[in-house]
Amino acid sequence: MDSIKNRRTIRKYTSQDIPADLLNALLEESFRASTMGNMQLYSVVVTRDAAMKSKLAPAHFNQPMVTSAPVVLTFCADFNRASIWCRNRKAEPGYSNFISFLNAASDALLVTQNFCTLAEDAGLGICYLGTTIYDPEQIIRILNLPKLVMPVATITVGYPDEQPEQPDRLPLRAIVHEETYKNYTPAMIDDIYAYKESLPENRHFVEINHTETLAQIFTDIRYKKSDNEAMSENLLKVLRKQGF
Amino acid sequence: MDSIKNRRTIRKYTSQDIPADLLNALLEESFRASTMGNMQLYSVVVTRDAAMKSKLAPAHFNQPMVTSAPVVLTFCADFNRASIWCRNRKAEPGYSNFISFLNAASDALLVTQNFCTLAEDAGLGICYLGTTIYDPEQIIRILNLPKLVMPVATITVGYPDEQPEQPDRLPLRAIVHEETYKNYTPAMIDDIYAYKESLPENRHFVEINHTETLAQIFTDIRYKKSDNEAMSENLLKVLRKQGF
Repeated sequence: MDSIKNRRTIRKYTSQDIPADLLNALLEESFRASTMGNMQLYSVVVTRDAAMKSKLAPAHFNQPMVTSAPVVLTFCADFNRASIWCRNRKAEPGYSNFISFLNAASDALLVTQNFCTLAEDAGLGICYLGTTIYDPEQIIRILNLPKLVMPVATITVGYPDEQPEQPDRLPLRAIVHEETYKNYTPAMIDDIYAYKESLPENRHFVEINHTETLAQIFTDIRYKKSDNEAMSENLLKVLRKQGF
Repeated sequence: MDSIKNRRTIRKYTSQDIPADLLNALLEESFRASTMGNMQLYSVVVTRDAAMKSKLAPAHFNQPMVTSAPVVLTFCADFNRASIWCRNRKAEPGYSNFISFLNAASDALLVTQNFCTLAEDAGLGICYLGTTIYDPEQIIRILNLPKLVMPVATITVGYPDEQPEQPDRLPLRAIVHEETYKNYTPAMIDDIYAYKESLPENRHFVEINHTETLAQIFTDIRYKKSDNEAMSENLLKVLRKQGF
């Protein structure tokens, strides 16, 4: 499927808007993804309003796509709707717990990827914002998410105004294990990361960041232990606050 | 995209095997999904061996697809490979924490859905097994998953030997919220669940289970509070044991 094979993340969009009919058709199709017990444990909040985008931007570290994309979609794990249905039908829901969050988050992420595939196949470009779970409380407040609803993914969408190079990927043998997981020897690590480490853009990255290795950019600059620990604590606190 | 629009879960497969070349091509394409910092925080364990399938079956409540499908794929959140790379490159990884699990799980689930789309487009049928996180310790032991590797999704794959009806979905207005989340009134719940509750198969389901409502099948039989609470406790314990 060429739209998947040739895809790249798009961070610059033209001023062209996305018609509501098209967006709704893509969302509706995306909901064909597998879902636990056919409960569809997700909701999607559509942001088109400029003022709302400006409010959301800080939660995403002010990445410019949030305000420049015509549409921002926040995909949420949602056990609220199903729980209200249960309560209104003489059934006592038991979904205020961690596995229910993970079940709903899985449902939501499958739909997120389905939407991305469909959007790209329709000529749109998307950017996946991993920042959604970094400071979810802001997003919860801005989008007015009730208990048992938790944002898990944000996608900016628009018509592409750039055609970046396709990024590298590790070779298949780095990811796929036959029958059992074979742990990585130093020689295997050298082999599977060699191409990534040899790329001029990554060498340049190391140079301008004054690190000794590419890996140090990840551990010391981009995804630091202290940040991860603080965000983990916060995330677990917010999950509890949201009722999971 | 018709392969998504018309999809249905396939639980019965012909005896035809999936060529390794085809499977590898689909997996490699699926790895084009968005991934955090291009780290590809996932691994896939391919199960073809009949003895291995039999070992995995109990972890999936002996659902027959696990032993009858030619291929079973276990998609794992994986911060092990990236962490070894870091350590071998004078970088100290800081990914033994909860947000790193959720980041890696997100990566893995996006790839899982991408794989499903590609497989179905190639004429294969898939079944998503939500059971993967119910008793992950068994899967971890059988597949020999080291610390910082956690199974998050299992897919059975094969050539379809059935053509089931497409299941219902909630209407778009049940899932999509414009600008902010609008909580559900009783009238809205009645409206959006009316079609599902009216379906003959669901009425039949209520009858044979001797419940008063369809929702009670979910709360009292299929996804019970006591089970969810026990599985949540276990899941958090296993996550800690796996180093997250």
